[in-house]
Amino acid sequence: MQKKQVNTKVLSGFIELLPQEQILFDNIKKIVEKSYKSAGYVTIDTPVIEKSEVLFAKAGGDTEKQVYRFTKGDNDLSLRFDLTVPFARYVSEHYNDLVFPFKRYHIAKVYRGERPQKGRYREFYQADIDIVAENELSVMYDVDIISTLAKTIEKLATSCTLGNFKMRISNRKIWDGFFEYFNISGEQKAQIINIIDKKPKITQEDFTSSLAERVKNPQIEKLIMELFELDYIPNVGISIPEKYHSDFVFIQENDKMKLGIKELETVIKSLKSLKSMPEDRFVVDLSIVRGLDYYTGTVFETFLEKYPEFGSISSGGRYENLCDNYTDRNICGVGGSIGISRTFVPLIEDKKIENKWGGLVDILVLPQNENCYAKAIEVRNEIVDYMEGICKTSIIFENKKFKKMMEYANKVGAKYVVIIGEDEVANNTVTVKDMESGGQQTLSISDAKIIFKNLQKILK
Amino acid sequence: MQKKQVNTKVLSGFIELLPQEQILFDNIKKIVEKSYKSAGYVTIDTPVIEKSEVLFAKAGGDTEKQVYRFTKGDNDLSLRFDLTVPFARYVSEHYNDLVFPFKRYHIAKVYRGERPQKGRYREFYQADIDIVAENELSVMYDVDIISTLAKTIEKLATSCTLGNFKMRISNRKIWDGFFEYFNISGEQKAQIINIIDKKPKITQEDFTSSLAERVKNPQIEKLIMELFELDYIPNVGISIPEKYHSDFVFIQENDKMKLGIKELETVIKSLKSLKSMPEDRFVVDLSIVRGLDYYTGTVFETFLEKYPEFGSISSGGRYENLCDNYTDRNICGVGGSIGISRTFVPLIEDKKIENKWGGLVDILVLPQNENCYAKAIEVRNEIVDYMEGICKTSIIFENKKFKKMMEYANKVGAKYVVIIGEDEVANNTVTVKDMESGGQQTLSISDAKIIFKNLQKILK
Repeated sequence: MQKKQVNTKVLSGFIELLPQEQILFDNIKKIVEKSYKSAGYVTIDTPVIEKSEVLFAKAGGDTEKQVYRFTKGDNDLSLRFDLTVPFARYVSEHYNDLVFPFKRYHIAKVYRGERPQKGRYREFYQADIDIVAENELSVMYDVDIISTLAKTIEKLATSCTLGNFKMRISNRKIWDGFFEYFNISGEQKAQIINIIDKKPKITQEDFTSSLAERVKNPQIEKLIMELFELDYIPNVGISIPEKYHSDFVFIQENDKMKLGIKELETVIKSLKSLKSMPEDRFVVDLSIVRGLDYYTGTVFETFLEKYPEFGSISSGGRYENLCDNYTDRNICGVGGSIGISRTFVPLIEDKKIENKWGGLVDILVLPQNENCYAKAIEVRNEIVDYMEGICKTSIIFENKKFKKMMEYANKVGAKYVVIIGEDEVANNTVTVKDMESGGQQTLSISDAKIIFKNLQKILK
Repeated sequence: MQKKQVNTKVLSGFIELLPQEQILFDNIKKIVEKSYKSAGYVTIDTPVIEKSEVLFAKAGGDTEKQVYRFTKGDNDLSLRFDLTVPFARYVSEHYNDLVFPFKRYHIAKVYRGERPQKGRYREFYQADIDIVAENELSVMYDVDIISTLAKTIEKLATSCTLGNFKMRISNRKIWDGFFEYFNISGEQKAQIINIIDKKPKITQEDFTSSLAERVKNPQIEKLIMELFELDYIPNVGISIPEKYHSDFVFIQENDKMKLGIKELETVIKSLKSLKSMPEDRFVVDLSIVRGLDYYTGTVFETFLEKYPEFGSISSGGRYENLCDNYTDRNICGVGGSIGISRTFVPLIEDKKIENKWGGLVDILVLPQNENCYAKAIEVRNEIVDYMEGICKTSIIFENKKFKKMMEYANKVGAKYVVIIGEDEVANNTVTVKDMESGGQQTLSISDAKIIFKNLQKILK
């Protein structure tokens, strides 16, 4: 048996879940979608394939190497590597048909030919939200993005017992203003930002020595170390510890730093005042910089206390000139993303998520012989209509022993089996077996529905 | 303005909807998903990219030309052109982890480099259901597949005012047995089946002349014409008009034809007896053959009376040896598909579907100045939680005149605007404006919720 002509294993780095696992992932995806949608984000569905000239208008060398690129006819095509570049193209193309501020979500697969490793996939789902407008957009939309992501992750955390999480927030204008003031730019700035980005992942010692090596100025190095202590003080706002105040008088002459601090203050204050969320979920952290060029204001990352090894599970920030390769309009915006495949596929594969969403089948209808088939189909249809899509009601037609059928019911995880025999057909009844207790009772279909009503609460 | 460096138009033959249109398509997709799931089908999510050797193990010449095929590193890869071949690979690979009969649905994009034309796309959604098992599978599962598709299309027809539809059903064993009996095979059989497939689309005259040309035997030609009159007679079953009975005594010696007629009878009888559906929805039609090799029993196609130009919007049938390129196990099954992009994208683009699912935003929260932002966010969050994901509640932060804000509310299709001014903050109230009537009232948030409750019924 099983002499295979072709290897049927899924491609290396690609995800393929078993049906029981897929139920978990799909419900996780649905929680995210429902949350984004409820918060007033609307979805778009752009093609997986884009013209290469569209994708590579902005992308750098490393991304380009990872892209699945090919020709078909005369067309130079590529599979999208993120959802942001297609979004920029979409906004540019449909500008006149969109209402701004435009709030969109997009939960879809993206493709990167990375070296496969646990939690890094070549095809994976991103779950993005963005708000864009022309020329200007209130910093309050940064609050909208972060609070929507926080509420979404909170729902996921509850459903998947992820435990506590923290969103670490900064503002790129603070560092950009700081480096401008001290005439640090180009490769040196890039190297310093790069080591700031690494700060949480390396030892304090390694950090200070790497920083010294790159800054080459003990005074500036000292100021950088002091800036990390910038924090939000209730009733005061974002400030540096008083002992450093004399070091930072120059901020008064630095509009960019001042604006960055003001924006960060607005964002943190608004987030901390949200009654529905614990205040300590939102933390000021100047080591959050998120790469070199793209972000121009608010930046944030999200960490699970229970799974620090995942790194940031949700990140994003404020940007300018989203569409500058496609249009001369200045489209600015703020956005964020939850890496749902990267976070949840490893948890599902390691069986760390409990299934609250039922088995492959919730109610299994079991006609006992051919004379009961018609009745059984009617009963199944009636249960489906009654349950309004909340539970999975299947039916099987097998000439096998009752014990075999019970084994099947157990394997698919059925909560109830509805037995339709010739007596049930004659008396217009059904026999309902509770698979957990093992008890069974014969009753009218309307009385059976009262039993199934319980499933609505469990599976909702 | 709008000097574009790169052409942002979507690739020819690819679909890109505006947000208002996307809401329609997504709700249509959701109706299908909910219906499949309720009927006990579970989903799988295979990669869009497959090894070419997997996809081309079975595919013929025409399909091969249309496939998006490319190399990445040492891998010869292709984008899937349907959901059946990946399903066959999945079943072969995960055989030991699946419970049979295995009922799966898969609603996802497939790729074909066809010449683009209205209703034919290069990237489109298929919505498949299949039931598979090893060695044997009751013909009642054919009933399950067809009735599940019928119930699903009925829901779509109601939501999208598609009008009446008919499912035309046949059984390939009848023709296969017939041709075997008369020693018609190979190219001749292929040509005859091909012209039978075309029968509904050409004139009676063209059909009879083409048939004569291919059959080259007036006696057999006469029998073929008579066989088209095979029909289901209540209380009798599938039969040929009495006047032809003497022509068909040979059926008694033809097991394949006999079995085909018996299967067709079981399927049609069971479908017609479903109380929840009109009897005349299901019709025997021997001109339904669906290609040459794949199907081995029940075959069906579905037509909208209002839109005959769409051809069949849902087709499928019974097959053997699904996995014979991947495993020596005999996996047989029955399946069907709804072409949701091909059917609904043209209807959406031609504005033939009414939107019953609300605008881009249903409830718009509108803080009047910065002092009202915190309160407004809380109110938005409270509405979101209360409405449990049924409506879209957005918030905007703009320093624009009230009239401008009302224009925005109209453009996004808001049903209610919730105004939060300084009075509302001070008194812990909200002002709710009904965008349809224009009336507005100031009330407590709990009283406002009673108003919003109505949306639950409309948008559900």
